[in-house]
Amino acid sequence: MKTFTDYLWFNTKKRKELINITGDIAERVAQSGVQEGLCLVSAMHITAAIWVNDEESGLKQDVMDWLEKLAPMGDYRHHLTGEDNADAHLKRTLMHHQALLPVTKGQLDLGPWEQVFYAEFDGQRRKRVVLKILGE
Amino acid sequence: MKTFTDYLWFNTKKRKELINITGDIAERVAQSGVQEGLCLVSAMHITAAIWVNDEESGLKQDVMDWLEKLAPMGDYRHHLTGEDNADAHLKRTLMHHQALLPVTKGQLDLGPWEQVFYAEFDGQRRKRVVLKILGE
Amino acid sequence: MKTFTDYLWFNTKKRKELINITGDIAERVAQSGVQEGLCLVSAMHITAAIWVNDEESGLKQDVMDWLEKLAPMGDYRHHLTGEDNADAHLKRTLMHHQALLPVTKGQLDLGPWEQVFYAEFDGQRRKRVVLKILGE
Repeated sequence: MKTFTDYLWFNTKKRKELINITGDIAERVAQSGVQEGLCLVSAMHITAAIWVNDEESGLKQDVMDWLEKLAPMGDYRHHLTGEDNADAHLKRTLMHHQALLPVTKGQLDLGPWEQVFYAEFDGQRRKRVVLKILGE
Repeated sequence: MKTFTDYLWFNTKKRKELINITGDIAERVAQSGVQEGLCLVSAMHITAAIWVNDEESGLKQDVMDWLEKLAPMGDYRHHLTGEDNADAHLKRTLMHHQALLPVTKGQLDLGPWEQVFYAEFDGQRRKRVVLKILGE
Repeated sequence: MKTFTDYLWFNTKKRKELINITGDIAERVAQSGVQEGLCLVSAMHITAAIWVNDEESGLKQDVMDWLEKLAPMGDYRHHLTGEDNADAHLKRTLMHHQALLPVTKGQLDLGPWEQVFYAEFDGQRRKRVVLKILGE
């Protein structure tokens, strides 16, 4: 059995961003030497998410607008602590903070249009994603 | 360590459907010979999801109506590409596209009412779900 | 390869509760002896979820209020069966019912503020969460 762990670091220029990390993950899968296994991709900060969907600029704007509608910026109890990012916690919750990617014959076993995105909702600071690969 | 990979294919008659795949997965778990492990079930097309919930016709209609309310069909930027299915991408996001099922003593270790559904939001074409089992 | 399985039982006093189970999980990880691996945490009842977010009382109230807004109590087809908890099924769906936690050097490999919560939406009865750890 093989295990492999690595971390991806982000420091986005904007508060909200979608960053395609499929290539970064594929690189780590190759490094790991795992032929058959599972690769966990998980945002370690609680105002960021992982989204598996389409690399299409219109849809990426659509999803960000839609999240703003379902989990808008505004007044929240959380802000009594001095924070201003409760909406980002809710957006992470909607998008889910992790994905588990199958590895088959040494490669990410994704569908034809599946791309993996780091979804930042409270950026402009250093934040991490953990990659953990298990297999043989 | 054992690994097992298989794919389930779907081609639904309707645009939106919920299909119970618990039996199909249980069959693959038996085939895999894994006694203790984890089974990933992941929709490989970005307008479909995996839902773990109740086999009850009323609730299944409720969840489809509710998704229509939170992620309605309509005008989206994505449709400038010629597509008409942005709502299906959003519905997949709400439902999440995958589940990880524990395997204990050679069987799916699910709660008394947990059933696994393939949730199609843009059907009438061939689409796949990957099953990947890891264990011993 | 090591595998470890255990179950956490809950019987909440209120219909809806968020219970921090990070310590309970960390205990099981230590018991398992796994140094490098993955730990599945999954709610086995279909009106409960697992939420990985902040141990902050204001935010915890915010998220419960927000879920009530997106998936309100009310009239649903599911209630024709005699049940009254369709909203709880929808809330579980929004929050997602499981999380997969990396284990690194024998410990839960969580971000600085990541805490794991059992999210109950139809409590006051005995319900279970399964923990399944795979690794070496």
